[in-house]
Amino acid sequence: MVTTRSLEDLDAHSYQEYVATGQGLVLIPTGATEQHGPHMPLGVDAMLSRAISLAAAEDLDALVAPAFCYGYKSQPRSGGGNHRAGTTSLSAQALIAQTKDVVLEFFRHGVRRIAVVNGHFENYQFLYEGLDLAVREARAGGLDDSRALLLSYWDFVDEQTLAVVFPDGFLGWDIEHGGVLETSLMLHLHPEKVDMSRAPDHPPADLAPYDVFPEDPARTPSSGCLSSPAGATAQRGELLLSTVRTGIVRAVTSEFGK
Amino acid sequence: MVTTRSLEDLDAHSYQEYVATGQGLVLIPTGATEQHGPHMPLGVDAMLSRAISLAAAEDLDALVAPAFCYGYKSQPRSGGGNHRAGTTSLSAQALIAQTKDVVLEFFRHGVRRIAVVNGHFENYQFLYEGLDLAVREARAGGLDDSRALLLSYWDFVDEQTLAVVFPDGFLGWDIEHGGVLETSLMLHLHPEKVDMSRAPDHPPADLAPYDVFPEDPARTPSSGCLSSPAGATAQRGELLLSTVRTGIVRAVTSEFGK
Amino acid sequence: MVTTRSLEDLDAHSYQEYVATGQGLVLIPTGATEQHGPHMPLGVDAMLSRAISLAAAEDLDALVAPAFCYGYKSQPRSGGGNHRAGTTSLSAQALIAQTKDVVLEFFRHGVRRIAVVNGHFENYQFLYEGLDLAVREARAGGLDDSRALLLSYWDFVDEQTLAVVFPDGFLGWDIEHGGVLETSLMLHLHPEKVDMSRAPDHPPADLAPYDVFPEDPARTPSSGCLSSPAGATAQRGELLLSTVRTGIVRAVTSEFGK
Amino acid sequence: MVTTRSLEDLDAHSYQEYVATGQGLVLIPTGATEQHGPHMPLGVDAMLSRAISLAAAEDLDALVAPAFCYGYKSQPRSGGGNHRAGTTSLSAQALIAQTKDVVLEFFRHGVRRIAVVNGHFENYQFLYEGLDLAVREARAGGLDDSRALLLSYWDFVDEQTLAVVFPDGFLGWDIEHGGVLETSLMLHLHPEKVDMSRAPDHPPADLAPYDVFPEDPARTPSSGCLSSPAGATAQRGELLLSTVRTGIVRAVTSEFGK
Amino acid sequence: MVTTRSLEDLDAHSYQEYVATGQGLVLIPTGATEQHGPHMPLGVDAMLSRAISLAAAEDLDALVAPAFCYGYKSQPRSGGGNHRAGTTSLSAQALIAQTKDVVLEFFRHGVRRIAVVNGHFENYQFLYEGLDLAVREARAGGLDDSRALLLSYWDFVDEQTLAVVFPDGFLGWDIEHGGVLETSLMLHLHPEKVDMSRAPDHPPADLAPYDVFPEDPARTPSSGCLSSPAGATAQRGELLLSTVRTGIVRAVTSEFGK
Amino acid sequence: MVTTRSLEDLDAHSYQEYVATGQGLVLIPTGATEQHGPHMPLGVDAMLSRAISLAAAEDLDALVAPAFCYGYKSQPRSGGGNHRAGTTSLSAQALIAQTKDVVLEFFRHGVRRIAVVNGHFENYQFLYEGLDLAVREARAGGLDDSRALLLSYWDFVDEQTLAVVFPDGFLGWDIEHGGVLETSLMLHLHPEKVDMSRAPDHPPADLAPYDVFPEDPARTPSSGCLSSPAGATAQRGELLLSTVRTGIVRAVTSEFGK
Repeated sequence: MVTTRSLEDLDAHSYQEYVATGQGLVLIPTGATEQHGPHMPLGVDAMLSRAISLAAAEDLDALVAPAFCYGYKSQPRSGGGNHRAGTTSLSAQALIAQTKDVVLEFFRHGVRRIAVVNGHFENYQFLYEGLDLAVREARAGGLDDSRALLLSYWDFVDEQTLAVVFPDGFLGWDIEHGGVLETSLMLHLHPEKVDMSRAPDHPPADLAPYDVFPEDPARTPSSGCLSSPAGATAQRGELLLSTVRTGIVRAVTSEFGK
Repeated sequence: MVTTRSLEDLDAHSYQEYVATGQGLVLIPTGATEQHGPHMPLGVDAMLSRAISLAAAEDLDALVAPAFCYGYKSQPRSGGGNHRAGTTSLSAQALIAQTKDVVLEFFRHGVRRIAVVNGHFENYQFLYEGLDLAVREARAGGLDDSRALLLSYWDFVDEQTLAVVFPDGFLGWDIEHGGVLETSLMLHLHPEKVDMSRAPDHPPADLAPYDVFPEDPARTPSSGCLSSPAGATAQRGELLLSTVRTGIVRAVTSEFGK
Repeated sequence: MVTTRSLEDLDAHSYQEYVATGQGLVLIPTGATEQHGPHMPLGVDAMLSRAISLAAAEDLDALVAPAFCYGYKSQPRSGGGNHRAGTTSLSAQALIAQTKDVVLEFFRHGVRRIAVVNGHFENYQFLYEGLDLAVREARAGGLDDSRALLLSYWDFVDEQTLAVVFPDGFLGWDIEHGGVLETSLMLHLHPEKVDMSRAPDHPPADLAPYDVFPEDPARTPSSGCLSSPAGATAQRGELLLSTVRTGIVRAVTSEFGK
Repeated sequence: MVTTRSLEDLDAHSYQEYVATGQGLVLIPTGATEQHGPHMPLGVDAMLSRAISLAAAEDLDALVAPAFCYGYKSQPRSGGGNHRAGTTSLSAQALIAQTKDVVLEFFRHGVRRIAVVNGHFENYQFLYEGLDLAVREARAGGLDDSRALLLSYWDFVDEQTLAVVFPDGFLGWDIEHGGVLETSLMLHLHPEKVDMSRAPDHPPADLAPYDVFPEDPARTPSSGCLSSPAGATAQRGELLLSTVRTGIVRAVTSEFGK
Repeated sequence: MVTTRSLEDLDAHSYQEYVATGQGLVLIPTGATEQHGPHMPLGVDAMLSRAISLAAAEDLDALVAPAFCYGYKSQPRSGGGNHRAGTTSLSAQALIAQTKDVVLEFFRHGVRRIAVVNGHFENYQFLYEGLDLAVREARAGGLDDSRALLLSYWDFVDEQTLAVVFPDGFLGWDIEHGGVLETSLMLHLHPEKVDMSRAPDHPPADLAPYDVFPEDPARTPSSGCLSSPAGATAQRGELLLSTVRTGIVRAVTSEFGK
Repeated sequence: MVTTRSLEDLDAHSYQEYVATGQGLVLIPTGATEQHGPHMPLGVDAMLSRAISLAAAEDLDALVAPAFCYGYKSQPRSGGGNHRAGTTSLSAQALIAQTKDVVLEFFRHGVRRIAVVNGHFENYQFLYEGLDLAVREARAGGLDDSRALLLSYWDFVDEQTLAVVFPDGFLGWDIEHGGVLETSLMLHLHPEKVDMSRAPDHPPADLAPYDVFPEDPARTPSSGCLSSPAGATAQRGELLLSTVRTGIVRAVTSEFGK
């Protein structure tokens, strides 16, 4: 019986016993080191995906791997852009390679069910490639029952929850960077890391339907947030966490069995 | 004066004169070789991005580069999945490298303004990485005014057009694979390549908010379409083309100047 | 029964039926975007390999994949050099990766016989590497009967044909860039894309038996052609096409069976 | 003035102010996810390099970047080998790419002094390559004063400290995996993560002067430790930390100035 | 004054003096480890390119770098094929990377003129890519006068020499693997490594104008030679060496100045 | 029966017979092109690993592959640093790829036992990665009994030998670059390549316990040696060779059987 859901806090002998049950399930939280406005820390994305993974792991009897603390380049239409100070990103090659390597290692241990819980929008396609390469290689090498699942946690926020969290109407995920969603979750999970007195209050960013290279700093509000977090509360964060946790647990159970 | 907008049909001497004006603008259409149901050909994505690019090029005095005919792996939530027959895809590494190489070559010629016109959803992030690497390298090498733009054509369909094309309500871009949007555009642009007698008519696919590896074939309708193209017409295609063309021309002009 | 030899014009359901016969054969034409003098377009190499593939496909009941429109860097001793405007090339890495990926996809579909029909001299070794990697990987992964063939179309021009096409004597393939061979084929296949009034007439280029880096522009005639296309005629193009088509069909049949 | 030494806990606006001083110094702790016997958790290496970095950062007015939680493959002669359950490692390519990317990002922010604090023996050469590539690229791109430093923390344990920590004689760093050094540091820094009741007590591993592929599991003691941690105490950990901290601060100051 | 032309036999201090003259010229011989029939050793290609380089270096006051002893995969149409025992080859990636790295190092030392002397047909395009990448990077990094030259030694055999070496007519370079050319040069340069009593005598191989994957062993004569070396003599080898040496010296001088 | 231990001097037919016995064993010597002071040539590392391999091969009935003449970047703490003239190094990528490729080729031939004999400290981890990748791939591809061994020759010098070679006390391997060990071995094996009249005599280098980027030339003695070779003699070299040879033969026999 494991005494912690956090893989890095577990000893190898206990891990081996856990895996030997044949029911091992590992959740890999992925985030970024990315500016999130003046009121929240650079590590928000990994903190949230890790906390959500730990919560879901309780229900799933799963373990949570060390979070990917660096993510793909922040983009202006979802994260404010990679030109901003503090944002510290990986190239596609590095993120794909890391994903592939880590997933293959868990398969090697005997884990056959892996779920990557993404907390940074820009990561998704590179995680997808890493997972695709890893599962192909594992199966080509004889681990025929290796399976994986990839999700971004906000895709589990349902209409009902949106209505509560955004009583004035939900304007879309693209401008949620540093906004009500992330700030509410942080206020619930890590209130000591949020300083609402520094939260900006400005209209939502007017995002162009395309990207330019090099980035145009003028396209991102100076705060770094794409919308105002003013409506964020710990209570809304609690609701969001609960919704997301339930959805993820249901999805994983549905795919991998109980 | 160039006599064609199609770069592959132009001779090198005319091209050189065009570039020598200092006003050169190259559009690069990108697509895929991907199943699009029983009623449309495998090459739809490149055909559409190329046709849209050629139309916009008229207004922009631009040239259109040879289309990227192969794209990133089709995904179940946007293209039906890469497991289906006919879908012939590139890895992330290949698509990123191709994008970077081709863009750097146009910069080397003296072109300073490039726009990638994407026609395959799954490509976007890999085109982004290729463009980011190319523009960084060009600028590090002294081509300080090199600039590029990346867009997916459907991001220029406005609310007004959606209301006309989807009179019963628009259900989201994710299920538009092989549906009304693409089929209408094909009926307008390449009617001889569409066989509406083979068009499937089934409810929209019920897409899960996550991906699984390996893909689950049961998650994609057997037709390969994620929604019914039954409402597609050439007239709607004409409207879509007109809207998209106008939007792209406006975006490019706004960023790169007239 | 397929209604077109062109894969990009075929729908996925028809393709699947074609492959299900177990007799599927896919030809992949490869070319380049490369200057070909003032009288011919930049896309000559892909146009020719594609046309030749389509012709051979008729005899072989084969399908022709979307052409590789970008090729390896043009070299002074075979294509005038990569420094010239219009020439838009891939690095070795990108071409190898693209070849490997695309070939593996056709094997995945169930096609077991693939022929790459090369139309750009500089591509050959990189296509070779891509094919070698793909066939090894396919076989290591259990697709034991996967086979492929690689050819450059001019290697099928026989002595008899050379005597007719070059009545004053054949000076070697190396200087045929933009010369009589390619121009004749274009005059037969795509006469509307050739402007013989702009065809240069100068002595054959005096090629050094080595390469220099960076390229020395003075080593390539200003026309970009390595010999004069003055002797090109559509009739000679027709003869060349016929010879090459016959040779390729014979080679493919000999290796892969009828 | 920054309020935390931990970069992931800092907001981007404060970070920007810190960097704007021109005196920015970032420490990057690197570790691994690697078995460390039955008495210590899998995350020991990153926990120690992070704690040591945070301590040194106080003296250096530096920031500590998110730790690299995954490291290069564990080797039998320093970490027990990569075949053991729980050990979750990166390939050379992934670790080199991650190091290069992250270091280049800090240079981009305006930080000119970076120190990588390594906590996993097997990482060193790959961190070296990543740093070498990053510093070359930064300088080639115009950031002429970019500098970096690479160290492994145990290289700062002096003879005097060794005499105290290993009163019966020091047998060499190679067998210190899961032994007195790491266990003492953990007992001082994270006592709640150590369970001395599970600590193995066996003679030091008899390491061969070479490596074999595939690894021979019989060459590693079943505990996973290469020597007994029986002599570990929190007091010795405190001494070790103090020595290492002093040494690192002295080295960084000596190279980068005060 | 250097006392040897062989770089590996020279000490670093003498090398530095040599480079400091500003007239440094380094020749890099490249070969392969490849079967060459029963009468010649596996290392023929590197032995010949090295010996030719040393001879030319005398006339050019150049140094000869350690030979590349491994080359690209042997191909059936030029080297008998990579399936044969003893042939030990590199992938494209490895050969390109090695070439780029080594050339960049000589540029770093202050050498501005480099010539790669190739002795293995299959290497050429990969050496070309490596050189192209190296010269671009060197120049982008500020070494503006960096130049390189690439040649295969047999391209310097003139008609007059061919007439003497092949009195019954020259049948083409493609079948010269293990034949009269290489054997004659070895008989002149390394007679102790040739055993003419084991030399095969069979008709020239009938090479197909294409390649198949996987290779068809039946397409290569069982000897491994593509033509008979029966006509090889040390005298012919001496003539060949003299012709090639003269040609290479003339080419290098012509490009790089005296 | 093979007539030479040197693979490059052996013909392919004899090699095939050797491998066909099923007892084939190949040693791969690896070195570098690296400054070794004013008294020794640049090629020392490959010369020594090759000579040691040839000696051990006699006892083991093994063959010695062509040496890797280029190695990983020289580092200040073991080789004086890569900034020095003459040192000509590979990147991690190139060395890993070369190692993997070459090892896989020997497995393909039917050799099942390979030992890499390293002569350049900095190479070790990259050889390790190449071997790990090769053995995994060989086994995944069905060559289940493929095995390899990696060693650095100096790890076989025992205490007794050290006492004789360093009568005044041994100061550690890190400063042995260009010192008594290498010089003695060279005086025994290749006396004509050593010029003791140019041997420097200075105190051992005072090496810092960390690395800086870019390298600080002041940290390496101007001679390029990290300690004085004054005590080197051919007799000591003979003893060292004998000790190392015995140790390697014992290790290989112990792992691979007689």
